[in-house]
Amino acid sequence: MSQAPATSGNRLIGTVAMRWHGASLELLDQRLLPDQEIWLRLDTADGVAEAIRDMVVRGAPAIGISAAYGVALAARGASSDGWRQQVERAIDVLAESRPTAVNLFWALTQMREKLAGCNTQEGATETLAAAAVAIHQDDLAANLAMADHALAHMKADQPMSVLTHCNTGALATGGYGTALGVIRRLHEKNLLVNAFADETRPWLQGSRLTAWELSRDGIPVTLNADSAAAAILASGNVRWVIVGADRITANGDIANKIGTYSLAVLARYHGVGFMVVAPASTVDMALSSGQDIPIEERDGTELRQVRNVPMAPASVPVFNPVFDVTPANLIDVIVTERGVVSRPNSAAMRALFG
Amino acid sequence: MSQAPATSGNRLIGTVAMRWHGASLELLDQRLLPDQEIWLRLDTADGVAEAIRDMVVRGAPAIGISAAYGVALAARGASSDGWRQQVERAIDVLAESRPTAVNLFWALTQMREKLAGCNTQEGATETLAAAAVAIHQDDLAANLAMADHALAHMKADQPMSVLTHCNTGALATGGYGTALGVIRRLHEKNLLVNAFADETRPWLQGSRLTAWELSRDGIPVTLNADSAAAAILASGNVRWVIVGADRITANGDIANKIGTYSLAVLARYHGVGFMVVAPASTVDMALSSGQDIPIEERDGTELRQVRNVPMAPASVPVFNPVFDVTPANLIDVIVTERGVVSRPNSAAMRALFG
Repeated sequence: MSQAPATSGNRLIGTVAMRWHGASLELLDQRLLPDQEIWLRLDTADGVAEAIRDMVVRGAPAIGISAAYGVALAARGASSDGWRQQVERAIDVLAESRPTAVNLFWALTQMREKLAGCNTQEGATETLAAAAVAIHQDDLAANLAMADHALAHMKADQPMSVLTHCNTGALATGGYGTALGVIRRLHEKNLLVNAFADETRPWLQGSRLTAWELSRDGIPVTLNADSAAAAILASGNVRWVIVGADRITANGDIANKIGTYSLAVLARYHGVGFMVVAPASTVDMALSSGQDIPIEERDGTELRQVRNVPMAPASVPVFNPVFDVTPANLIDVIVTERGVVSRPNSAAMRALFG
Repeated sequence: MSQAPATSGNRLIGTVAMRWHGASLELLDQRLLPDQEIWLRLDTADGVAEAIRDMVVRGAPAIGISAAYGVALAARGASSDGWRQQVERAIDVLAESRPTAVNLFWALTQMREKLAGCNTQEGATETLAAAAVAIHQDDLAANLAMADHALAHMKADQPMSVLTHCNTGALATGGYGTALGVIRRLHEKNLLVNAFADETRPWLQGSRLTAWELSRDGIPVTLNADSAAAAILASGNVRWVIVGADRITANGDIANKIGTYSLAVLARYHGVGFMVVAPASTVDMALSSGQDIPIEERDGTELRQVRNVPMAPASVPVFNPVFDVTPANLIDVIVTERGVVSRPNSAAMRALFG
C-alpha cells in the first residue's frame, strides 16, 4: 500500500492535514480548528466531494490532491458492472465541488487520462491510487522547489518581516506550503523576524489555520485584522507580501482569496514587494486574463454569523465573494516550481508555461 | 427636567441609543447588538466611564456626550462636603476612559468651564445637566448641518452607491449620524442606490451596528468583508467612500477606525471620492499632524475570540490597533457643521478652524 509523504510527521514538512490509507482518506476537519482537532475518514468519492464543498479541506493544491484520492476511492468502491462509468461520474461530481481553483480540474484531468489507460477495475484501483499519491508527492516536491526559487529571487541578506493572507501552508497543500512554504524557508535560514498573518475574513483561515500552523511549528507569527494590513505596511516593517493563488491566467493575472487584490494595491502604494507562490498546476493558459475566472460567491451567512452566533441582522443583504482578481501589473513576481516570472505579462508567462 | 432631543423617536433622527433622565443616563448596550437590545441605566460618573471603556457606548461624538452626562451625574451624586473636588475627580476619571477620540476631551473641557462658574452644588447640578443636554442637542444639529454641506459638495444629480466603514450613525452620535447621516440624507433625497458597509473587524461595528441601524431605518445596505472593499471599488459601482473621524489634526490628517487608511489608499487608486464627516469638536488644532495622535491598542482577545469562542490559538501574538491615521493628501474633503475643507492642508484647515 502506498503511503503519502506528508504522513511521515517530518518536521521540515510541518503540520499534516491529510492521510491516505489506500482504502480511505483521512482529512483534518479544518472547519473546527483551532479548538478541535477532528479527523474525518472518507471512503467514497461523494464523501470527498462533500468535504471539499463544505471546506473540511481547502486550499487550491489540497483540493486537487483530495479530489485525486477521491477518484482512487471511486475505482475501489465501484461495483464491477460499469465500474468505468462510475469512476467517470465520480470525476464529474468532484469537478462540481468548488469553481475557482484550477488545481482541482488539473488533478481530475490527470486522473481521467490515467483512467483511460486502465482495462480492469483491479488495475484501475491500483493505477489511480498510485497516480493520486504521485500528485501528492509532486505537490510537496513542488513546494520545496518554490521555496528555493523564492529565496533566490529575494536575495535576502538580513532578517525581515513579511505579511501573508489566508492559509497557504501544510494545511492547504500536500505539505510544507506555497507562500507559507517560503515563510518556513525564511525561518529555517534565520531570515524571518515575524510573519504578520491577516486573520482573513470571513472564514478566518489566518487566525484559525495559519496562526495555528505557524505557532505549532515554532515559526514567529503575529495576527492582525485584515484592515490593519495597510497600517502595518505603512510602518515600514514589512519587506514582502507573500500570497498563494487559486488560478493564474495566461497574462499573469491571478485569482486568490478575497483581500489579495487589496493587499496588492497597498503593497504597490507602500513600495513593498508582492510575491505570488503557487504550483504550475495553478496556471491556466486557456484563460487569457483574470476577467475570465469564475469567482465563487458563498452564502451570506458566513458574514452574518460566527459559529452560529448572529453578528448582523438575519435578513441583511451580503456581498460575499470568496476570491478576487489581482492584475499582473500589481504583481512583482510569480514563483512556481518551474521557476519565477518577474513582472508577469503574457510573453513572460508564455516563456515558462507556453 | 430637560429631555435630550434624540429620545423623541423622530424617524428623521433614526434609531436612538442614549436616553437622559436627569438623574440617570440610559445607554443601549452596543456590545450585545444585534441579537439583544439591552439598556443599561447609569447614575454615576464612574459607571459612565466604565461604559465608555468597555464599549457599551462607542463612536467619538457619543463618547463625548456620554461623558458630559457623566459629569452632570457626578454633580448630582456628590456629597455636599467637597462636591467640587468630586466633580473634578469625575472629569479626570472620564478623561482616562478612551485615549484616541478628542471629542471626549473637548466635551470635558466644556463641562470643566461650566463647573468653574458654579458656586453651589445645587446650581452645578442644574448647570451641568443643562450643559450636557446642550452638547447633545448641538451634536444632533451639527449632524444635520453636515449632511447639508456634504450633499451640496457632492452635487449628486443621480442615485449612487457609497461605501462606509465602522458605525457613524445614530448609535455613534447624538442622533442621525456623521458619515451615516450623509448616507441617510442621500436616501431621503432618493439619491442612494446602496450603502456598502464594511463589517469592520474586530469589533464588527459594521455588521452589528451599521447593518442593524440602516436595516431598521429602511435604508438599503449590503454588508461585505473589510477585505472585499477593494474589489467593490474596482467594480466601478461606488462613487464615494464616506467615513467618520475620531480626531482631525491641524494639517487635515485624521485618525479613525482601523481600516480607514486602507480605504483611503484604495479610493485614491480607483478614482473614488474619499469624504470624512465629523463635528468641529473632532478637530484638534493643537496637534500639528496625525503622527502626534495617540493610537489605542486593545487586547488581542478581540481577534483571538469571537463572543468567547476561540478563533485562534490562545497564546498567538496579536497586533490590534483600534485606529489608524489617514494623511490629508488622501482625503478629498472633510465635512463639518462649519463647512467643508476640500483637499485639506494646514492653510485650508486654519481658514475654517484657526
